Amino acid sequence: MQRKKTENEIIENLIKPYAFPHPALKKGIGDDAAVWLPAGAREFLLVTTDMLVEEIDFRLEWTTPRELGRKSIAVNLSDLGAMGARPRFFTISLGMPANTSDRWIREFYKGLTSCGGEHGAILAGGDLSGAAKTTISITAFGESENRKTAYRSGGRPGDLLYVTGTLGKSAAGLKLLQQGIIRSRRGSERDALRAHRTPEPRCAVGQWLTQNGIRCMMDISDGLSADLPRMCAASGTDAEIFAGKIPVFAESALWECDPLKLAFSGGEDYELLFAVPASKRRIVKNLPANFPPVAHIGNMIEGNGKVWIADEEETRRSLSTQGFDHFRDV
Amino acid sequence: MQRKKTENEIIENLIKPYAFPHPALKKGIGDDAAVWLPAGAREFLLVTTDMLVEEIDFRLEWTTPRELGRKSIAVNLSDLGAMGARPRFFTISLGMPANTSDRWIREFYKGLTSCGGEHGAILAGGDLSGAAKTTISITAFGESENRKTAYRSGGRPGDLLYVTGTLGKSAAGLKLLQQGIIRSRRGSERDALRAHRTPEPRCAVGQWLTQNGIRCMMDISDGLSADLPRMCAASGTDAEIFAGKIPVFAESALWECDPLKLAFSGGEDYELLFAVPASKRRIVKNLPANFPPVAHIGNMIEGNGKVWIADEEETRRSLSTQGFDHFRDV
Repeated sequence: MQRKKTENEIIENLIKPYAFPHPALKKGIGDDAAVWLPAGAREFLLVTTDMLVEEIDFRLEWTTPRELGRKSIAVNLSDLGAMGARPRFFTISLGMPANTSDRWIREFYKGLTSCGGEHGAILAGGDLSGAAKTTISITAFGESENRKTAYRSGGRPGDLLYVTGTLGKSAAGLKLLQQGIIRSRRGSERDALRAHRTPEPRCAVGQWLTQNGIRCMMDISDGLSADLPRMCAASGTDAEIFAGKIPVFAESALWECDPLKLAFSGGEDYELLFAVPASKRRIVKNLPANFPPVAHIGNMIEGNGKVWIADEEETRRSLSTQGFDHFRDV
Repeated sequence: MQRKKTENEIIENLIKPYAFPHPALKKGIGDDAAVWLPAGAREFLLVTTDMLVEEIDFRLEWTTPRELGRKSIAVNLSDLGAMGARPRFFTISLGMPANTSDRWIREFYKGLTSCGGEHGAILAGGDLSGAAKTTISITAFGESENRKTAYRSGGRPGDLLYVTGTLGKSAAGLKLLQQGIIRSRRGSERDALRAHRTPEPRCAVGQWLTQNGIRCMMDISDGLSADLPRMCAASGTDAEIFAGKIPVFAESALWECDPLKLAFSGGEDYELLFAVPASKRRIVKNLPANFPPVAHIGNMIEGNGKVWIADEEETRRSLSTQGFDHFRDV
């Protein structure tokens, strides 16, 4: 039986042949956002788009409309932040079943615009459509500052790899939802549910890092094991990761999760992954105190897109891609 | 029983309260596209978005993937053209059922990018998602020339109202499809099917008109009876239309359509509707010969958003809104 194509393969083989170059398009398909230089503009315009589909990306019984609104814009702002852009505005196309209530619509837009506003992005337009399942498609726009941006391709062998925050927390929250735990008063469960339902885009961190010299960054939306190989392939390197240094969400072991596995293949963390040339290590030391913690998880090495994991015994093994893929055979 | 809200009412009552102003946002919700002035830019950036959902907006058995690709971008380019913008680039979020073939994807992107390319817009990025029904969400970007743009609100009492091309042809094509006629060799049927499946966005006409002084324009996507009242409401006028002057698709009478009714309430024509101050009538006379014909269908008069239709006996009656609305009780 023929193996189904992955999302990467569809993009590489079926879509990229139709993406043509243009002098004003500084970066097209393949990064978190496209980069365009408008006529006579001082700054690059960064554009990203994401589609969330009911029963594929979310379940209406697991989230309030306000939370869903927040998450819908957050995942787009995360893409802008990961390239260092300052969010500016967004448009939304919303497909809704006929029985969607006025209250649902109002709460959804409230969440959408309040999260957007917190990061500087306003609602500029959109489209409404009928649909059997709620379908949310947002396009968000940001501007660079001094034309500084970070790309997936900006890494070199020898660079140090860092991540922000905790990995696997969102996936741990999803496990709770799948077990029927929709709300919880226990601290760790509440944290995990919040990370899954209303992730915080790391826009301020991404902008700060880019302004301070970081040139290789992306957000971790599909899990480290899917996203890190993408960064390595774009940069023309391999990566060596120290399993013991991954900032896992250890509390998830309480509800029978494997924290390390979730950190690698859980997805939807929307933390930042970035590469720092060894000569610029001090950048990380200078991070403002109110930013989330960052962890040095490994290094880029010579190679062509593979990721190696070293455990405590320093046994090195290759990482198979296990992140979230919409089109993977499960 | 409570009447369901129309699309207009949802936008006005539930969404607009969350659309906040910003100095760089020259036009937000309510026109065919949003207008943004990027930092230091010479030109306005115009942004529009449209969602097409299988079984609501199209049927896969009525269109080839290449035709569907063309139409998906055409409806967005039409919005840009209607405000006078030069199309530049677009992003697409595509939700696909698991059984979508490689050939379908390739043909869809071929149609998408060839129609985009004909009007100057290149594919810059996108997102893929699984979905039960094929769902297409495109956001398209254009730039103004010399910051000249046309708005729905630019009309004044006394202006002459014109439309390009023929109205009701797309709806006549839809009637054929509903009767099981998917392909036809008869000239008029082929024309109607083509108008429905692969409408031509009037970008060149829209740009020419705007550069030559037209300041009030929109595209007719939901039918004259839905779209003209929107223009009148935005401009703070009424309109008086001469039924006999509407450029109807008379051949549709052959398959038991009422050509005038389709012209008013059919939708999906993607022709331009524009208002010309009486003092600038010569603009229309100077239209390049290779442009589609334009027809003077009536005038703007004092009022507040109503449309009056005068028939041959000069009896004037009010037009009820009969255009296509995703959320209308049918």
